[in-house]
Amino acid sequence: MERHFEKDLNELKERLLWMGGLAERAVHQAVQAVLNADEQIAQRVLAEETAINEMQIEIDDRVVHVLALHQLMAVDLRFVLAVSRINNDLERIGDQAVNIAQAAQRILRHPRVKPYVDLPKMSEIVEGMMRDALNALVRRDVVLAQSVLSRDDQVDNLRDQIFRELLTYMMGDSSVVYPAFDLILMAKNLERIGDHATNIAEDVIYFVQGRDVRHPAVDRR
Amino acid sequence: MERHFEKDLNELKERLLWMGGLAERAVHQAVQAVLNADEQIAQRVLAEETAINEMQIEIDDRVVHVLALHQLMAVDLRFVLAVSRINNDLERIGDQAVNIAQAAQRILRHPRVKPYVDLPKMSEIVEGMMRDALNALVRRDVVLAQSVLSRDDQVDNLRDQIFRELLTYMMGDSSVVYPAFDLILMAKNLERIGDHATNIAEDVIYFVQGRDVRHPAVDRR
Repeated sequence: MERHFEKDLNELKERLLWMGGLAERAVHQAVQAVLNADEQIAQRVLAEETAINEMQIEIDDRVVHVLALHQLMAVDLRFVLAVSRINNDLERIGDQAVNIAQAAQRILRHPRVKPYVDLPKMSEIVEGMMRDALNALVRRDVVLAQSVLSRDDQVDNLRDQIFRELLTYMMGDSSVVYPAFDLILMAKNLERIGDHATNIAEDVIYFVQGRDVRHPAVDRR
Repeated sequence: MERHFEKDLNELKERLLWMGGLAERAVHQAVQAVLNADEQIAQRVLAEETAINEMQIEIDDRVVHVLALHQLMAVDLRFVLAVSRINNDLERIGDQAVNIAQAAQRILRHPRVKPYVDLPKMSEIVEGMMRDALNALVRRDVVLAQSVLSRDDQVDNLRDQIFRELLTYMMGDSSVVYPAFDLILMAKNLERIGDHATNIAEDVIYFVQGRDVRHPAVDRR
């Protein structure tokens, strides 16, 4: 019996990591579609969204299955609940990748306006946060998860800087307002992916330590 | 024993609805802070965020407690998992309300630029979606939940229209770029609140019908 639930929990983790791989790939491809002005890669992101959505449903079904079959202890319950939440975050990361891919398609229709300010740098940090959040999950590595949380401010600062530069650019030349605005939306999408990676890292700390780090200001008993 | 778990599930629902009330109030106040240029209400939203965060942690603790104490059937498991996800959505709605309240504070420092285009209308629809998603939860009302989903496109269209109008406005007068951009960010925040209300409505349908409506394109067995 014990073996049985361990096997189910392991399978659940494996499927979640597979889903994580799909979401990472979607983000990476969507960013490349913008930066390399590559319509084909943008199309691929849109085509592959279904796989992420199917995986989300499969994982939610497995979560219900595991909880219905086994009376788990608190530590394992926290793990299963974290999987359920991380599953949601990964699906929403996939949605953000789709938004970026669609922005890429719009941007391709305009003449290229300008180097993409700090968007490549912001993408790199956000992709690193996703990768490390998933690695922290695999290794139950709280230190790595903490390092993801600590990068969130950096992402917010880069976003503000990108906003400022693009708004200044728009003020100087009203003909670039629309393409520059698509880059602003891309920065918003990347910020949101960083938020989801942060949520995943918080969930890893939650299930490893049984400690909630989401609201440090709240007095925890 | 049976009574016992029903009592726990009911308490869980009551607390979630209390949290829903806090989130609704935060959104309503944040929107009023912008539309009425009211610094005091903006401050109140920031002060009340802690209560939402504390409630999120309490509800997550209750979810673990209920699952640890009772071996639930699939229908009740789906309800508890939905509560856990809705709890997350409500907390993130609270975050969006904080963002809007902070935008209100920035906007107050600029001279008032223009009537707020369709932002009052968009706010009204989004607040209605939240209210009805929570009412659908109380009444297990799938038809009402469906009506929330059907409003999502309307919100996206309003958002696009608000973007277009504000961008045109910015193109005509570069001195309004910053205050107009804060209104654009507010439209993004409202859109995201609408997304969370949609997620809540989907979760209501999921636990009432045992049917996943999140990805209609996916072939469900």
